[in-house]
Amino acid sequence: MKIYLAGPDVFLPDAIEVGQCKRSLCERYGAVGLFPLDNAVDLAAATASMQIFRGNRAMMDEADAIIANLTPFRGPSADAGTVYELGYMAGRGKLCLGYSNDPLPYRDRVAKTHLVSSSEGILFDEAGLVVENFNLVDNLMIVHGLDLHGCPLVVPDIAPADPWHDLAAFETCVRLVASRRA
Amino acid sequence: MKIYLAGPDVFLPDAIEVGQCKRSLCERYGAVGLFPLDNAVDLAAATASMQIFRGNRAMMDEADAIIANLTPFRGPSADAGTVYELGYMAGRGKLCLGYSNDPLPYRDRVAKTHLVSSSEGILFDEAGLVVENFNLVDNLMIVHGLDLHGCPLVVPDIAPADPWHDLAAFETCVRLVASRRA
Repeated sequence: MKIYLAGPDVFLPDAIEVGQCKRSLCERYGAVGLFPLDNAVDLAAATASMQIFRGNRAMMDEADAIIANLTPFRGPSADAGTVYELGYMAGRGKLCLGYSNDPLPYRDRVAKTHLVSSSEGILFDEAGLVVENFNLVDNLMIVHGLDLHGCPLVVPDIAPADPWHDLAAFETCVRLVASRRA
Repeated sequence: MKIYLAGPDVFLPDAIEVGQCKRSLCERYGAVGLFPLDNAVDLAAATASMQIFRGNRAMMDEADAIIANLTPFRGPSADAGTVYELGYMAGRGKLCLGYSNDPLPYRDRVAKTHLVSSSEGILFDEAGLVVENFNLVDNLMIVHGLDLHGCPLVVPDIAPADPWHDLAAFETCVRLVASRRA
């Protein structure tokens, strides 16, 4: 069982070490973790970003499953690149799992950085756009995509002190993949 | 040719009218636009969000192509639900198009709301996470996903005054879909 390890983890200053930890956890459960940074790319090359895309897509096509780190990234939702990859794997019929180390509902996270008001039971931000209010942790396409293409989103009861390095929710996902196979 | 019309347009106060405008533009070019809000759902029902997901997925499975509104939404990147749908359609082998009404590179948009610093040619935000710096308008998975699964991202030279209602870039996408078919 090969698992594509998606997430903004690749943007961490210690991304290589985090990837190694994730791969080791996969190994412990008898799976092989494929981490995007394993694609060697010359970042100075003019074609670097396309090389990374092609490398990631080839890894996804090779994998049987995805575990996506959907912890909010520079905004109230998950990292856009990770979400693209989750959708891609769902479209390819692969087993889809994900976790978020922030258990707050999406609407509460939006309210932290936007002026949210209510009118006739519907929430709006200050620009007048509706705020999704289904008591879900992120956009419904992400949450129900996981429900129907794999396992429900894994979320801790309380946000860990270091959401970018705490791998408890990630390990739960690995265990779920392993139990699916057994 | 059926085109799934993805985007945070569904969150606009005049979403129904915007969807109607988009459908009319599709019709003008001989295509059929499928707009997510066309799924009638009782928002008060406990299963409302799952009904919306199933409706959107059925529409995507029915469509031959997607035109995704990737204008940044509540952060420096596109709307997470829209990005999921773009990835899903790429995974299903459908024709993928998208537009963004904000032509700024991603790194410049991040710099508007985050303290960005440079070290040895790499950009970091205040949390120490790397800022993608490939001179692309959004995450490379989105931009190159379009390059390889459809047409390059359509972006105006200058951001329109009303990015949520200006449909010039959208119309360019419809024209591109129509020319693909011709």
